[in-house]
Amino acid sequence: MKPIIGRVTSMDVAALAGVSQSAVSRAFTPGSSLSAAKRELILSAAKKLNYVPNSIASSLTTRRTNMVAVILGNLDNPFYVLVLKALAARLQQRGTQILTFTVENGASSDDALMRVLRYQVDGIILTSAQLSTRMTSMCHDRGIPVVLFNRYIPGSDASGVRCDNAAGGRLMADALLKAGARSFAVLKGDPRGSTSQDRFQGFAERLLEDGIPRSAILELEGQSIYRGAHAAVLRAFQDEGRKVPDAIFGINDTMAMGAMDALRGVMGLRVPDDVMIGGFDNIDEADYWPYRLTTVRQPAEEMADETLKLLDLDNPGAEIQPGIDIKLPGELVWRDSIPR
Amino acid sequence: MKPIIGRVTSMDVAALAGVSQSAVSRAFTPGSSLSAAKRELILSAAKKLNYVPNSIASSLTTRRTNMVAVILGNLDNPFYVLVLKALAARLQQRGTQILTFTVENGASSDDALMRVLRYQVDGIILTSAQLSTRMTSMCHDRGIPVVLFNRYIPGSDASGVRCDNAAGGRLMADALLKAGARSFAVLKGDPRGSTSQDRFQGFAERLLEDGIPRSAILELEGQSIYRGAHAAVLRAFQDEGRKVPDAIFGINDTMAMGAMDALRGVMGLRVPDDVMIGGFDNIDEADYWPYRLTTVRQPAEEMADETLKLLDLDNPGAEIQPGIDIKLPGELVWRDSIPR
Repeated sequence: MKPIIGRVTSMDVAALAGVSQSAVSRAFTPGSSLSAAKRELILSAAKKLNYVPNSIASSLTTRRTNMVAVILGNLDNPFYVLVLKALAARLQQRGTQILTFTVENGASSDDALMRVLRYQVDGIILTSAQLSTRMTSMCHDRGIPVVLFNRYIPGSDASGVRCDNAAGGRLMADALLKAGARSFAVLKGDPRGSTSQDRFQGFAERLLEDGIPRSAILELEGQSIYRGAHAAVLRAFQDEGRKVPDAIFGINDTMAMGAMDALRGVMGLRVPDDVMIGGFDNIDEADYWPYRLTTVRQPAEEMADETLKLLDLDNPGAEIQPGIDIKLPGELVWRDSIPR
Repeated sequence: MKPIIGRVTSMDVAALAGVSQSAVSRAFTPGSSLSAAKRELILSAAKKLNYVPNSIASSLTTRRTNMVAVILGNLDNPFYVLVLKALAARLQQRGTQILTFTVENGASSDDALMRVLRYQVDGIILTSAQLSTRMTSMCHDRGIPVVLFNRYIPGSDASGVRCDNAAGGRLMADALLKAGARSFAVLKGDPRGSTSQDRFQGFAERLLEDGIPRSAILELEGQSIYRGAHAAVLRAFQDEGRKVPDAIFGINDTMAMGAMDALRGVMGLRVPDDVMIGGFDNIDEADYWPYRLTTVRQPAEEMADETLKLLDLDNPGAEIQPGIDIKLPGELVWRDSIPR
């Protein structure tokens, strides 16, 4: 049987430990100041009385649960692991924990959001692709702030934070053109995701300025993941015998790495001598010695900062301004996969 | 202002949509059968009435919150991302979500567990290193099942699931000895973590059987992460000018990869010709072309299965048997970083 929870109050603990009630509260609040000895005393008293403050019971009066839902599309992409870490560090700092929801790659987030609404959360951060405008308005009606991370929903007034993906795509096209590339392939991610579309769009627009039409770009489906890109490259250039272009743009780094490994490891080509490779994100692995991938850095930490500012957890009553679209610039990081 | 939540009941929604109350319940339960048209009707009625079932309010009667806390030590180690994915897939399947708590590498989990106890969770899975026996007994007293994932606490009766790390260490020593190695270095992780200790222990015991004492093994502190191992290898073999041994055992794959990149990328050595490298975990990256790392596979999926069996979420009243220590065998995966 479970013991009965919540009958013992912080006053009981304070009395037993011989400290103030506020000291008991501080003992259970991350980051608050309290001497080790006093904390030890309070924890020992709490244990004797089987007392622990219950955020959820108290949330019924304060309406705060100190939980934020994060809907994640794809932990196979190391960039989203970086994002999760950046968000967790900031939220935990203020005593808020992440309730994670994962969505199959490319699937709609509507079901996930419906699951989220079964819980009482202080806010929702959505990092995965598809979402209907009805679901965002459903959260809005319930007063739960929703922030889109690195995506937007056309026709919706949901607010969000993203990297300027189109401008980043332009930066990469520019780098490859300057290095002398004239023929191109692109490894695309989720075809319905705004991130992949925008990066490709910016990339194609810049190429067009140099007279290369979009129809001349070979489009490969890399499914946003290393193995997807690896397989797509081998299918196109080995099985179907297509001509390897001067340059391949991986819409994210993990796909660029999959392409590099297929081209070098299986087909025996050299990067950048035989084929240049560009990526996007600047995950840690892009800097590892076997890759040294030239890429567009996404400012993940700054994006996490802006996301929490938009969520505005300190003002639970306030509504998020609709239609805010914060775009942070990406930045080209030169390494060795494109000659300079 | 937030709207008032929970006044509208599923009966109101059923009445408006012209369906049964059980259909409304099914519309909000993941995986239950309902036609798309009926679901659409119910969601539309729910939206009009601003109704969503509230797991937390209902948890006050059922004592179930459909949340499991997972305490994570180190998302810089891709193995723990695999673990998180494996647990999330299984828990989400049964309508349970993960509340994540992260702990600094090497830090005590006591603070994290104290934070966990502010929430009402159906169970706790602990994947990070340090924990006092007092904290586990505190959870036990409150009737919250705790399962240790890939670690144990000496002197505690907390139950857990782990890879047979000592036997895995033996497997790796055996492989390296058979390949002709006679001098060894080990890249260790968290020195207080049972995982790192046990792998090293099994490794050293097997070497001793071939007459190589533990004192002859060079011990390097890799801090469980790629960059830590990279730096430790350069410090020992480049800065301090120590002799590079025949073989280096990375206590986990990401450290083995960091060692490989330092030895090859900075020092110009060849693997396995100049130095053999072994790892542990079998993360996806171990199979990537630049690494092709011979390693010990941890059965992450099976470990996740056993963890959920121990948690026994379907029997909330039942207590976990204390002192259960499920050890699953690792398995040597041969690739190219050790000659065969």
